Amino acid sequence: MWQPAQLPSIAAKLSERGLKLDPSQLTDLTGPTMGAIVSLNGCTASFVSPQGLVVTNHHCAYGAIQYNSTAEKNLIQEGFLARSTEEELPGDPNMRLYVTEEIRDVTKDVTARLKDSMSGLERYQAIDKAEKVIVAKCEKPGVRCDVYNFHGGLSFQLVRQREIKDVRLVYAPPSAIGKFGGDVDNWMWPRHTGDFGFLRGYVGKDGSSRAYDATNVPFVPKYHLPINAGGVEPGDFVMVTGYPGRTNRYRLTQEIKDAIDWYYPTNIRYYTEILDIINSAGAKDPAVAVKYASSVASFNNYLKNFRGQLEGLGKAHAVTFKQNKEDALVKWLGDQAGETAALAGDIRELRALLDEQRKLRERDQVLGYLNRTGLYSAAYTIYRTAGERTKKDLDREEGYQNRDEIKLEGTLKQQERRVDPAVDQALMTHFLKRYVQLPTGQRVAALDAWLGTGVVADEVVAAKVAGLYDKTELTRTEGRLKWFKAKKADIEASTDPALAFMVKLMPDLLAIEQARKERQGNELKLRPRYMRAMIAYNDANGQAVYPDANSSLRVTFGRVQGIKKDGVEFTPFTTGEGIVAKTTGVEPFNTPQSEYERLVAKDYGRYASPTLGTLPVNFLADLDITGGNSGSPTLDSHGRLVGLAFDSNWDSVSADWIYEQPLTRSIQVDVRYMLWVMDKIDNAHNLLREMGVQ
Amino acid sequence: MWQPAQLPSIAAKLSERGLKLDPSQLTDLTGPTMGAIVSLNGCTASFVSPQGLVVTNHHCAYGAIQYNSTAEKNLIQEGFLARSTEEELPGDPNMRLYVTEEIRDVTKDVTARLKDSMSGLERYQAIDKAEKVIVAKCEKPGVRCDVYNFHGGLSFQLVRQREIKDVRLVYAPPSAIGKFGGDVDNWMWPRHTGDFGFLRGYVGKDGSSRAYDATNVPFVPKYHLPINAGGVEPGDFVMVTGYPGRTNRYRLTQEIKDAIDWYYPTNIRYYTEILDIINSAGAKDPAVAVKYASSVASFNNYLKNFRGQLEGLGKAHAVTFKQNKEDALVKWLGDQAGETAALAGDIRELRALLDEQRKLRERDQVLGYLNRTGLYSAAYTIYRTAGERTKKDLDREEGYQNRDEIKLEGTLKQQERRVDPAVDQALMTHFLKRYVQLPTGQRVAALDAWLGTGVVADEVVAAKVAGLYDKTELTRTEGRLKWFKAKKADIEASTDPALAFMVKLMPDLLAIEQARKERQGNELKLRPRYMRAMIAYNDANGQAVYPDANSSLRVTFGRVQGIKKDGVEFTPFTTGEGIVAKTTGVEPFNTPQSEYERLVAKDYGRYASPTLGTLPVNFLADLDITGGNSGSPTLDSHGRLVGLAFDSNWDSVSADWIYEQPLTRSIQVDVRYMLWVMDKIDNAHNLLREMGVQ
Repeated sequence: MWQPAQLPSIAAKLSERGLKLDPSQLTDLTGPTMGAIVSLNGCTASFVSPQGLVVTNHHCAYGAIQYNSTAEKNLIQEGFLARSTEEELPGDPNMRLYVTEEIRDVTKDVTARLKDSMSGLERYQAIDKAEKVIVAKCEKPGVRCDVYNFHGGLSFQLVRQREIKDVRLVYAPPSAIGKFGGDVDNWMWPRHTGDFGFLRGYVGKDGSSRAYDATNVPFVPKYHLPINAGGVEPGDFVMVTGYPGRTNRYRLTQEIKDAIDWYYPTNIRYYTEILDIINSAGAKDPAVAVKYASSVASFNNYLKNFRGQLEGLGKAHAVTFKQNKEDALVKWLGDQAGETAALAGDIRELRALLDEQRKLRERDQVLGYLNRTGLYSAAYTIYRTAGERTKKDLDREEGYQNRDEIKLEGTLKQQERRVDPAVDQALMTHFLKRYVQLPTGQRVAALDAWLGTGVVADEVVAAKVAGLYDKTELTRTEGRLKWFKAKKADIEASTDPALAFMVKLMPDLLAIEQARKERQGNELKLRPRYMRAMIAYNDANGQAVYPDANSSLRVTFGRVQGIKKDGVEFTPFTTGEGIVAKTTGVEPFNTPQSEYERLVAKDYGRYASPTLGTLPVNFLADLDITGGNSGSPTLDSHGRLVGLAFDSNWDSVSADWIYEQPLTRSIQVDVRYMLWVMDKIDNAHNLLREMGVQ
Repeated sequence: MWQPAQLPSIAAKLSERGLKLDPSQLTDLTGPTMGAIVSLNGCTASFVSPQGLVVTNHHCAYGAIQYNSTAEKNLIQEGFLARSTEEELPGDPNMRLYVTEEIRDVTKDVTARLKDSMSGLERYQAIDKAEKVIVAKCEKPGVRCDVYNFHGGLSFQLVRQREIKDVRLVYAPPSAIGKFGGDVDNWMWPRHTGDFGFLRGYVGKDGSSRAYDATNVPFVPKYHLPINAGGVEPGDFVMVTGYPGRTNRYRLTQEIKDAIDWYYPTNIRYYTEILDIINSAGAKDPAVAVKYASSVASFNNYLKNFRGQLEGLGKAHAVTFKQNKEDALVKWLGDQAGETAALAGDIRELRALLDEQRKLRERDQVLGYLNRTGLYSAAYTIYRTAGERTKKDLDREEGYQNRDEIKLEGTLKQQERRVDPAVDQALMTHFLKRYVQLPTGQRVAALDAWLGTGVVADEVVAAKVAGLYDKTELTRTEGRLKWFKAKKADIEASTDPALAFMVKLMPDLLAIEQARKERQGNELKLRPRYMRAMIAYNDANGQAVYPDANSSLRVTFGRVQGIKKDGVEFTPFTTGEGIVAKTTGVEPFNTPQSEYERLVAKDYGRYASPTLGTLPVNFLADLDITGGNSGSPTLDSHGRLVGLAFDSNWDSVSADWIYEQPLTRSIQVDVRYMLWVMDKIDNAHNLLREMGVQ
């Protein structure tokens, strides 16, 4: 997971591996190739035409598809194709494309005022303030700036991005193609998913960033990717550029242990319970099912991921592996002199700090889940924002500044299509039933004052929650948007039960937040020292250390290849024949009839691979990707699009913690399958022409 | 799945495939090889020493292991090895080894008195009576005879078997070896299960069949299998001999459709509910968990099997496939003359009969599940047997004759270790809650009289069932055995609530049984005609028809080979390295420490394969097996033991209905892994010496 700026330093290795481009070309973020790579709401996407056409995964465009779906007109199932720009549909209000224009090191600016003597809170606030000042100086209308933390705070970089706020749905195959295999095949190989879809970025006629408006025009990117309709073959060089979200490859043993013993098991339980509640409601009412389709897909994905993490970490004997590494590091530090030797003490301090955090984790988990229900989060957003608005913009909490208000309002609006009040009430009731089981030391005074102390009966919890939903205005969009504009004092005077509840709760929530910042500030002191020790140790052993993924732009190189395991070999390509073999007619293996017939007839047109003699569907490569890379273009040695990364194999799930190259593979949808579906099944000839392949 | 007698007719083909034995040798049921093959309670086993030592699957010996386990001394987890015959443990009372001595066609004797004019019931009874007469003539102490029905009644064969009633547990590896991979890996490849265990047959000093007695001596078989400790390699000829239970390869389309639409889905629901009840009780009390371990394993196996059936039948488009075949058959019959043409009418009649059966299937399903609870089945067995005892032996119902009483008593005794009254009560309550949801047309008058009509409230059902358990003697072994000896009139005068309940219910159950026999009698007329049509049609198309599996002795030939599928290739062997890679330390991947260490050290001794360069664990072959083949010896071209069949791959599950050779594989535990575990891990040198391999 290289940062673009690092590429020239490994230029020789890259051309040896087969890269035909000049690696230094990849450091130019606005030129070929990087100019085409954009970030999209936690995914990656890329420009593939001069008219702002963007390709990404079906599951990354899912929010936009779902936003335009109803029980009557279900675009998820039916798919969607705009035959002209006029037919394109607005994405959901929070959909954004970010085009990275500059990445600059700002470590000195961020850390200049830090002192060893600072308390955790002081340190947190000093860093926070410095970042806000840098961001404020950088941002202007249509430009988004963010400071990214590398190595837990060892360095900071400013990322400047062009923001595109009007993102429209152009084309999505039916889910029987785009989600073929569904949760059954998720993380699995052999895979046959047509996980692709198209969006388009729009801006004002003057080129300015503007929210959806009928008069907006397609955005003209500085660069767009050429398509290699011939695809790649086994052994070929490939690379993936994108925005990997998060890896934990330098965590302490106790962190990986907590993940195994507590984090994954408890969250598996929560997600299972949430899915039970939502699915049983969805089974009774298709409108509810549509509203929660995107959430359910995401929860199922997490659930399977968490199970995979546990399985993978168990197989890798992760705790022993990490402990041995950590022991070796500490032992090595003991043999060093001066400042380096002192780092051992910092590691001990970091361990103690992590132990401290563990004491309130169940409380923080419940509060986190509560804040994912519609009513609670709406009340919180409204009241918190109103409170922050009473301060100067630079003093406002991150996420509640002026620059964030459109997004906050978008989220409140979006609830209309994503939240059903009855389901939401059931979820909130459920989480509060969990809350009342917390031990005394983890209770929140204001919540106890409202609910009662000790183990409160289920009926009492249910009645209390029902009281919040019964007369609130916040379960309706106009109510939420009206109150989002209200002043703090008006909210405090309101008799709306959800707002009154939040007004009572907020002081405690803010106190919890302050305590968290104190801990985080201390972590921001200790984690960089731990990473400094790690880098020094690896350096002494001749090993380079790359920073953990942090949603910033990265590049990974490798080649098309399968895996040999005991008793099984994953070959690198799946084909059209495999779709036929998997088809049962029942979701998620319900191949559309038109596709099934053409596959049986082997009507592959010009999209068959000459070496396979058939239509490639998905392929494996040894690329190091993680969540956030979804939708990333997979590029050949000339930087041409040959597929889209959309998943990893099962053995890769735990690679977020421990990377094992011989078993870790990314899964791509092959460009030839994408073009075949567009050409033969969905008749998306307008888009094929626009991309210059027809 | 050839019958032994058919083998000489395909002798040329067999030697071409690599068989080095004279095929006619295999028709001698008491000589080499067949003399070593025995049937074991729904599984297959084989003699491997002159002292009656028998090898089978761990999961086939599971009942005996569980029977000797308690929460304190859990042989399932710990494994067990008798270092001498004195240390061997008695198996559960119903464990039996059957040594087939003769198979003889008795079609004429069975069908001699049948007339077209007979009602269904008359036909059923005529066949039933003829079979009983044949069996009675054949049986004597220690000899079990049974008439098997082939092709749905087109032919009948008498099977004469030596019965061994004292079967002892000799050796079982710990479940972390014998069940490695558990339900997760069940039906899956790659597989690493050490699914083997050893039993020993005992007889009286005079050679007579006797139940467990300390003075009994090991049985001396006429033949025992030699061991090929060198195993087989990819491509090698292999064969499996055993007792496959049941296939449905000649069913009508509507039968396969009912299986997909109703049978598998509803039974999946039932099994899921049963497992919920048992598992939640087992989680609270380890003694309960041990009692139900064998049932839970079996239910989970069924559950996964049923899901595999649905998946496989869906992928194979089974309904369309069958319908096309059936249409072609009927069309062909229409083109024929005389008697053959008339068979089309019989197929129509058979269809109508099957439609008729469908009308009461939900009722029959509930009654079937009720009869699997301990108390209900005990009361039924006791009262039914007492009723049958008032008749002459030949007039008694099959399964309730003199010859069956020991087994019936054994089952009543076995409940002590297999049934927990509280769990049993919960299960019976659950099934009766399902019963009261049946439509009026499917209700049983006596049950309604007891429970109330219409939808009865859950609490009423629970209270009624509680009343049965509260004061019954049948939840204790001595109570069951006492009442099993009682006379019909005494039972009818009893105030034991479970017996009184059964006395009231029995007339309705018998009436239901009579109606079933009427339908079965009609089926015994029509099904052979359908099979005659099928055989004639296939004959005309040059295709041989082998009879569906029916628990009789069969032989299947093939070779060691993997499978190539789209994007994945299953290679034919798994190895010790694969066990290490799968090990997580958590069940079912909790490799014993001693095994783990030796595998990591690659301490394979003389058990490594020269071509693989490592220790083979399991292997694939294209052998046509099904349930009942579990434990079957896999033999090389010289008839030497090279492994044990214990499972099939996932694509084989639905092969019971539609056989697809390119995807269907049997899974064997490799003899080299068995010997390695015995030698290096469990120190079973006494057995290795007994088998002549050490």
